[in-house]
Amino acid sequence: MRHILIIGAGKSTGVLVDHLLSKSKEQHIQLIIADINLQSAQFLSKGHENATAVKLDIFEPEQRKLHIQKADLVISMLPARFHIEVARDCVAFNKNMVTASYVSPEMESLDQEVKEKGLIFMNEIGVDPGVDHMSAMKIIDRITSQGGNLLLFESFTGGLVAPEDDNNLWNYKFTWNPRNVVTAGQGGAAKFIQEGKYKYIPYHRLFRRTELLEIEGYGRFEALANRNSLKYREIYGLDDILTLYRGTMRRVGFSKAWNMFVQLGLTDDTYTLEGSENMTYRDFINSFLPYSPTDSVELKMRHELKIDQDDIMWLKLEELDIFNNKKKTGLKDATPAQMLQFILEDSWTLQPGEKDMIVMYHKFGYELNGEKKQIDSTMVCLGDGGLQTAMAKTVGLPVAIAALKILNGEFTEPGVQIPIKASVYQPILTELENHGIRFRESETEYLGYNKLQV
Amino acid sequence: MRHILIIGAGKSTGVLVDHLLSKSKEQHIQLIIADINLQSAQFLSKGHENATAVKLDIFEPEQRKLHIQKADLVISMLPARFHIEVARDCVAFNKNMVTASYVSPEMESLDQEVKEKGLIFMNEIGVDPGVDHMSAMKIIDRITSQGGNLLLFESFTGGLVAPEDDNNLWNYKFTWNPRNVVTAGQGGAAKFIQEGKYKYIPYHRLFRRTELLEIEGYGRFEALANRNSLKYREIYGLDDILTLYRGTMRRVGFSKAWNMFVQLGLTDDTYTLEGSENMTYRDFINSFLPYSPTDSVELKMRHELKIDQDDIMWLKLEELDIFNNKKKTGLKDATPAQMLQFILEDSWTLQPGEKDMIVMYHKFGYELNGEKKQIDSTMVCLGDGGLQTAMAKTVGLPVAIAALKILNGEFTEPGVQIPIKASVYQPILTELENHGIRFRESETEYLGYNKLQV
Repeated sequence: MRHILIIGAGKSTGVLVDHLLSKSKEQHIQLIIADINLQSAQFLSKGHENATAVKLDIFEPEQRKLHIQKADLVISMLPARFHIEVARDCVAFNKNMVTASYVSPEMESLDQEVKEKGLIFMNEIGVDPGVDHMSAMKIIDRITSQGGNLLLFESFTGGLVAPEDDNNLWNYKFTWNPRNVVTAGQGGAAKFIQEGKYKYIPYHRLFRRTELLEIEGYGRFEALANRNSLKYREIYGLDDILTLYRGTMRRVGFSKAWNMFVQLGLTDDTYTLEGSENMTYRDFINSFLPYSPTDSVELKMRHELKIDQDDIMWLKLEELDIFNNKKKTGLKDATPAQMLQFILEDSWTLQPGEKDMIVMYHKFGYELNGEKKQIDSTMVCLGDGGLQTAMAKTVGLPVAIAALKILNGEFTEPGVQIPIKASVYQPILTELENHGIRFRESETEYLGYNKLQV
Repeated sequence: MRHILIIGAGKSTGVLVDHLLSKSKEQHIQLIIADINLQSAQFLSKGHENATAVKLDIFEPEQRKLHIQKADLVISMLPARFHIEVARDCVAFNKNMVTASYVSPEMESLDQEVKEKGLIFMNEIGVDPGVDHMSAMKIIDRITSQGGNLLLFESFTGGLVAPEDDNNLWNYKFTWNPRNVVTAGQGGAAKFIQEGKYKYIPYHRLFRRTELLEIEGYGRFEALANRNSLKYREIYGLDDILTLYRGTMRRVGFSKAWNMFVQLGLTDDTYTLEGSENMTYRDFINSFLPYSPTDSVELKMRHELKIDQDDIMWLKLEELDIFNNKKKTGLKDATPAQMLQFILEDSWTLQPGEKDMIVMYHKFGYELNGEKKQIDSTMVCLGDGGLQTAMAKTVGLPVAIAALKILNGEFTEPGVQIPIKASVYQPILTELENHGIRFRESETEYLGYNKLQV
């Protein structure tokens, strides 16, 4: 029996556990599912004979070390900032480790030691980051090995509601951490490069600078720039690429409407509102509009944001009931972002049975034998309306698959790493295809950054 | 002979020195003018027999302590963050101290010790903060002493170019630290209260939420909200006031045009631009606009900011030559704000002989004997076109006057303080009037926050 310690029994851990349990007999695996909340761990272990649920507070070093010492491999599904506590013990006790999170500077600093000990710390192996890395590198490596030269790489991912449950005016529901959605894009200008020109978009313009995308069978989407696309030049070995742009996908029209919140200041998470617990939704909105003894909040809002009376944007606001003068959040010392999140959760919470959807879109422009070409690669994954959400599948499956392959010695290169080597991404992508997570490729003429020609 | 040590021989120290030297014989004063740059100190001492210029690096404790020990009073005209070094020595050697800067938490923490030793540390006694405190408290105290109840206090200050030299489309030139002008309003939402309602304006809306003001003989101005007006409730003893709003004055139209820079992201000071030293002005602007192989920077800018072809806003941009494709800033690793400042300094630097202007506008709404009333109080100070700028006069004179009064024992209350007590502001305001810095009051009917009535 080999022991896999899974720390953190959150939403995306379910699919991960199920996959590993389905292989547990043939693979002789025993799972130890550890969480600070024992019930969460028990819910996932389901009384399976190859799973044990334990209560673990990772800030109690003795407990933590004990469990890590007994494991053959450790999967950390904790919030990203907590991985390092686990990682240091994994180094000390010579254990391999898997996470779905970005490599932090602290994690990176362990690389030398991890290599010296011949260990594998595989990170960024969820969906974004994760499936995006693997599916992009597969095509980049192919183009390069054919002698092609990459000119353009654009990559977009979105967590959305599935078409059949897409029934509000925003074409959006929360399918993951709502807080991250409300504060998305904050903390600095978005940076990318287009046709060799560096471009910068400040946060308050981000939602007005979208691109349009279409996925066959799923219709049109829009994409807005992520914070820092530039770092992917080094990560993907695209140092001289002319266009590199990464972004987030939404349904068309979402960003223009979301921009109303940004413009008013409702997404600010840096200060608290006076008397927030007693504010109605209407009071909240009004605190960002000029004072008037007589003018309605509605008219002030229309005027401030220049919304015509027959604009669909207005109906989007009304749908959220944000002008309600009775409903209160009751949140004490809340930031504007916390108030907005509360209001949105009224309307955008996925109901039981409703399905989510993950969409991914890559564009690769390249030159081969003097000819310019373009490959578009898209992936759509739908949730099942239950615990097997698209998000849980696309995060949990690659983590589970990678963990098993490390355990079985199929990956050999040691170090703190991400899945950008063919020896890693090829077998994982192949297995993901068996679970319905597959990319469709199409070749088009090279369009460059601009679709519109003069 | 009494010795006044003046540390920091910058722009606003000239008037301060001149005033003290003009009184030096009758008052038996010897000035020690200290600066890290000896020439700056010598330039101000002018070989006057009652002035000595010395070189002083305040980060060399021995030097610093030696000079402070020998002084009878210390005036610190250093950048605000350096006062504390001086202040600690003043406590140690029992010296009174004067600064024109906001009281920092470190300075505030000395209050108990300063009081115990019977010392006076007078701060915030320049123009803003300074003259604003004194002129406002004079009227607030008068209204209160008559039994009136303050309903509204609004206060605005602006550093502008004098009407006779106001000859560009922006009606603006730099008359003080340009960096502070470029980054003004950043670092959080503006907060104030209007008719009992808390109001918040995010930075990217700040320049679109101005108020109009008029000063007789000087025409119309606009005002935009300062970061935090709310703290003045406690400072001025206006805990229950319904409207409290402090702001910055500009000529009408400045803010709407400045907003173009804010919207593009040109005022951001939090990151550096790739290759900034090789960017032309045009490249700089273009890096905030969408890529196009063919469209001009001009058309992209018009479209992005929705500027009609005959809009005066466009002429304001052209006046700054920001589309020039040859001029470069040459600044390495510059932030957008640093690049913008460089470009603006081309156009907005006060030329020799040109005059600056300080304007101040207070509004006081109050209820007295069941009647609502309003007092407006305004002040305009013009520079002389030389070193006696309006800024140097309105900062330097109150500092100098306060220093002399402390030296002569006319102020008796000890502690770390600001000039909000009648015993302090009355005599200083009277002397300022002799130097032409005077407020004009007018009574109007109470208008409340809204001038427009339905």
